[in-house]
Amino acid sequence: MTLAAAALLLLSAPAAPDAAPARVVLEAQLAAWNRGDLDAFMETYWKSPELLFRSNAATTRGWQATVERYRKRYLSEGREMGQLRFEELEVEALAPGVAFAHGAWRLAFRDGKTAQGRFTLLLRERPEGWRIVYDHSSGE
Amino acid sequence: MTLAAAALLLLSAPAAPDAAPARVVLEAQLAAWNRGDLDAFMETYWKSPELLFRSNAATTRGWQATVERYRKRYLSEGREMGQLRFEELEVEALAPGVAFAHGAWRLAFRDGKTAQGRFTLLLRERPEGWRIVYDHSSGE
Repeated sequence: MTLAAAALLLLSAPAAPDAAPARVVLEAQLAAWNRGDLDAFMETYWKSPELLFRSNAATTRGWQATVERYRKRYLSEGREMGQLRFEELEVEALAPGVAFAHGAWRLAFRDGKTAQGRFTLLLRERPEGWRIVYDHSSGE
Repeated sequence: MTLAAAALLLLSAPAAPDAAPARVVLEAQLAAWNRGDLDAFMETYWKSPELLFRSNAATTRGWQATVERYRKRYLSEGREMGQLRFEELEVEALAPGVAFAHGAWRLAFRDGKTAQGRFTLLLRERPEGWRIVYDHSSGE
């Protein structure tokens, strides 16, 4: 094989899927939450009626319903978003344009109370960028 | 293009990923549970120290620790496995050899009590067959 042919073969091979863009989304999500910016936080989710959000007790379908769930839970009277931290985070590219992420979440509130649980996400590359298309976040 | 060339093109195109093998695993899992066969149920999981099982309150690492968690929870004194049902089940092939499944689980016990929650699974084709490699099962 000539060097040119070898180079061509390399270039035409499918690129190894890369988890980095999914990590960037999760970092943006965390930063948005911790500055209390729910709008920016919600930008990391697929703005689609097909977005699926599962918690302990409910399945929420659609981006709009997911925003409302977050607003009710964290922005209504007497509530606060708190400071979020991810632990045991693993992000894995499954195929080009698809990544799987999971870990534990921990929220710390001003009064010293905390909340925690586990999460599993599927992210996909959409025309508008990488977005979370599925979220299963459960709490203890 | 000759018919032969067209056939060759079809044969050499990557096969569309197929969710059917993952569905078969979930059906086998459900059937094993409902006949009280925890050993067969556990055969649907990847027999590896890297298997990851997340519940509301804990992350369990490894097939052996996952068996022990199930035994303690469902086979110890005064416990029963009950009858399991999946609802809202969605199974999606993400790439050749990788599938994503999620839904709600519901358990019914002899005394009329029930338990329910949501689950998210990642399945992979291993040399020994398709197996669940990641399980996030949370309860209400």
